[in-house]
Amino acid sequence: MADPSARRTICLLTDFGLEDNYVGVLKGVIRSIAPEAEMIDLTHGVPPQDVFAGAFLLEKSVDYCPPDSVFLAVVDPGVGSERRKIAVQSGKRVFVGPDNGLFTAFLDQALVHAIENPRHRLPKVSKTFHGRDVFAPAAAHLAVGVPVTDFGPTVEAPVRIERPAPHPQGDSWVGEIVYVDRYGNLVTNFDEERFASPLEHGAYRVETSSGIHWPYVSAYAQAPEGDFCSVFGGFGLLELSVNCGSAAGILRLDRGARVVLRPC
Amino acid sequence: MADPSARRTICLLTDFGLEDNYVGVLKGVIRSIAPEAEMIDLTHGVPPQDVFAGAFLLEKSVDYCPPDSVFLAVVDPGVGSERRKIAVQSGKRVFVGPDNGLFTAFLDQALVHAIENPRHRLPKVSKTFHGRDVFAPAAAHLAVGVPVTDFGPTVEAPVRIERPAPHPQGDSWVGEIVYVDRYGNLVTNFDEERFASPLEHGAYRVETSSGIHWPYVSAYAQAPEGDFCSVFGGFGLLELSVNCGSAAGILRLDRGARVVLRPC
Amino acid sequence: MADPSARRTICLLTDFGLEDNYVGVLKGVIRSIAPEAEMIDLTHGVPPQDVFAGAFLLEKSVDYCPPDSVFLAVVDPGVGSERRKIAVQSGKRVFVGPDNGLFTAFLDQALVHAIENPRHRLPKVSKTFHGRDVFAPAAAHLAVGVPVTDFGPTVEAPVRIERPAPHPQGDSWVGEIVYVDRYGNLVTNFDEERFASPLEHGAYRVETSSGIHWPYVSAYAQAPEGDFCSVFGGFGLLELSVNCGSAAGILRLDRGARVVLRPC
Repeated sequence: MADPSARRTICLLTDFGLEDNYVGVLKGVIRSIAPEAEMIDLTHGVPPQDVFAGAFLLEKSVDYCPPDSVFLAVVDPGVGSERRKIAVQSGKRVFVGPDNGLFTAFLDQALVHAIENPRHRLPKVSKTFHGRDVFAPAAAHLAVGVPVTDFGPTVEAPVRIERPAPHPQGDSWVGEIVYVDRYGNLVTNFDEERFASPLEHGAYRVETSSGIHWPYVSAYAQAPEGDFCSVFGGFGLLELSVNCGSAAGILRLDRGARVVLRPC
Repeated sequence: MADPSARRTICLLTDFGLEDNYVGVLKGVIRSIAPEAEMIDLTHGVPPQDVFAGAFLLEKSVDYCPPDSVFLAVVDPGVGSERRKIAVQSGKRVFVGPDNGLFTAFLDQALVHAIENPRHRLPKVSKTFHGRDVFAPAAAHLAVGVPVTDFGPTVEAPVRIERPAPHPQGDSWVGEIVYVDRYGNLVTNFDEERFASPLEHGAYRVETSSGIHWPYVSAYAQAPEGDFCSVFGGFGLLELSVNCGSAAGILRLDRGARVVLRPC
Repeated sequence: MADPSARRTICLLTDFGLEDNYVGVLKGVIRSIAPEAEMIDLTHGVPPQDVFAGAFLLEKSVDYCPPDSVFLAVVDPGVGSERRKIAVQSGKRVFVGPDNGLFTAFLDQALVHAIENPRHRLPKVSKTFHGRDVFAPAAAHLAVGVPVTDFGPTVEAPVRIERPAPHPQGDSWVGEIVYVDRYGNLVTNFDEERFASPLEHGAYRVETSSGIHWPYVSAYAQAPEGDFCSVFGGFGLLELSVNCGSAAGILRLDRGARVVLRPC
């Protein structure tokens, strides 16, 4: 059933960083099993053990990847504990990694199987590096055509993490910061589909604690250099930014901080 | 005309860093359109929005890449403004990115077209991330054989940035620092072709402000550890260095600082 | 003899970092010569000029890569000096890089040849960047089938670095820290094969200077958060760790620091 000449894409997302050889050996393992698979690094810069950030970046990457990609995601603080290892088939996509909520956005209508079959892992499995010993081989076997059903029994109630949504409060909307990127942009959970139109029409002003105001613009370049602004960014979410500066650096607002759309 | 089985190389250079998923989604987009194209990361470590450094690194990379490569370069502080988006055909090479001077070194005798054709971009184009929505799809379409002429009309007077050249002053030559690398080497604009021979023959001494002298050597290993030296480095340019140390860290000389070749 | 359609894997390990274009041009050079070879980045985050760390990471990566890989390793403080350039054939694997001890683990029963043949390098060879001008072309030529014997004469007594092994002292074993990873885990030279069983049976306690005790656990998740522990990690070596923290950050223990297994 496996076809080692398959050129399916494997997309990698981890918190391993690039200083050590941890990502390198993942790729060596994959290429040994699936010599023709292509690998794309989504990122290896997830903050160490930050499952929430990993889940966010994965969710925001998937639609841009080939529709039949295999996603290998490893942010795994529970390695060596009883947490399960899962393969998630969602349409033509497959996800592989620990059962800790990383795949929350993709669990509805998905087929979720435990990864237990010793045929699809390395001969020796450490208790500290399942990324290399279990998940990378699983992703590679999936890429060459092994079906998720071969990996183990169905998993009931896979772990989900909470993904906060904005909620109304009187005439306002209350949201929060869900991600901070490397430029110091504070990414909120106000999505473009719902909130772009009222913001463009000036129906709300964007505020954070102490009443700081983030004037809405439709592109960074429209804000004066060094000024606060808010803009729908590449994630399709409203971001609080300082044009040519770092909002996170200036304001010490972090994930979870409250953001309010107040009627003008 | 397009051939999705083309294995042309796409070389990527951005200021996106590797912490977020910005580079990852670029690659997902490219691979979705050009499944057989090969991608090479030239670097994603250009300092944020530093068009000059991006142009420098691109110019110094191109000759080492396959001659028919597509170069996708995105350092784009003007995203969302009126700055144009261009595809530059120079011989067998093509460059794709914002019209802000990134491609200055390759504009002579080149064919420069605007990227406007909606068929060669993503269905939805954000105002903040043209790298993903416009430039990556354009590079991928070029890689599978779409000609630059298909993207839009010819662009008149594409933006050029100034690239400072050394100039004579009395018996001396005055140049400047044009790049600082991760080792703290201060890269000048004195090129090997013209200045290696007189420096090797001891015709000049290399000086920076306050009369600091950087004795010329032909390789780092010839300078005592911890000593100042000057050497023609991998860019083919004279570099001011501290053997096994960081010249930039010790001296706070930065881009634009004056460097003088004074007759001995 | 060369076959440019060969899809052999080239594994790269350097201390170049990813900020500049140094790794990028390496890949451009390789792809120009070996268009079908696949490249895997083991890491480019070796601390600058740290041959010992480079040798360690290379040794700990090789078994996870395809068995006929070409390994291009460049940590090269001696570039431009008289240090030799070598290609090392060890079984089906080949290693390429400077003769400074990087390949110590693979020299037994290996065929070691100097890289001197001008046909297998770039037309112009700098004195500061042999990675690009000599080693990358050599790796690419090896990947397309050129045999190591074509590169130059046999090299006598290639350089080896010392790799410290634990030694007994009375009833104790004395080892040391050999690597510190990005999580701040202090990796020792006590290997799993020999020391896992006695540690699991409680025969020894793990101590560092001032009598600090690192209770042995079989996985990070078994130690209370923030507590010291010791565990066999992904390298197959005993690591001193702080669960969800950085042992290196807290204790300022570095490579070479003494670690003792003391009988309980």
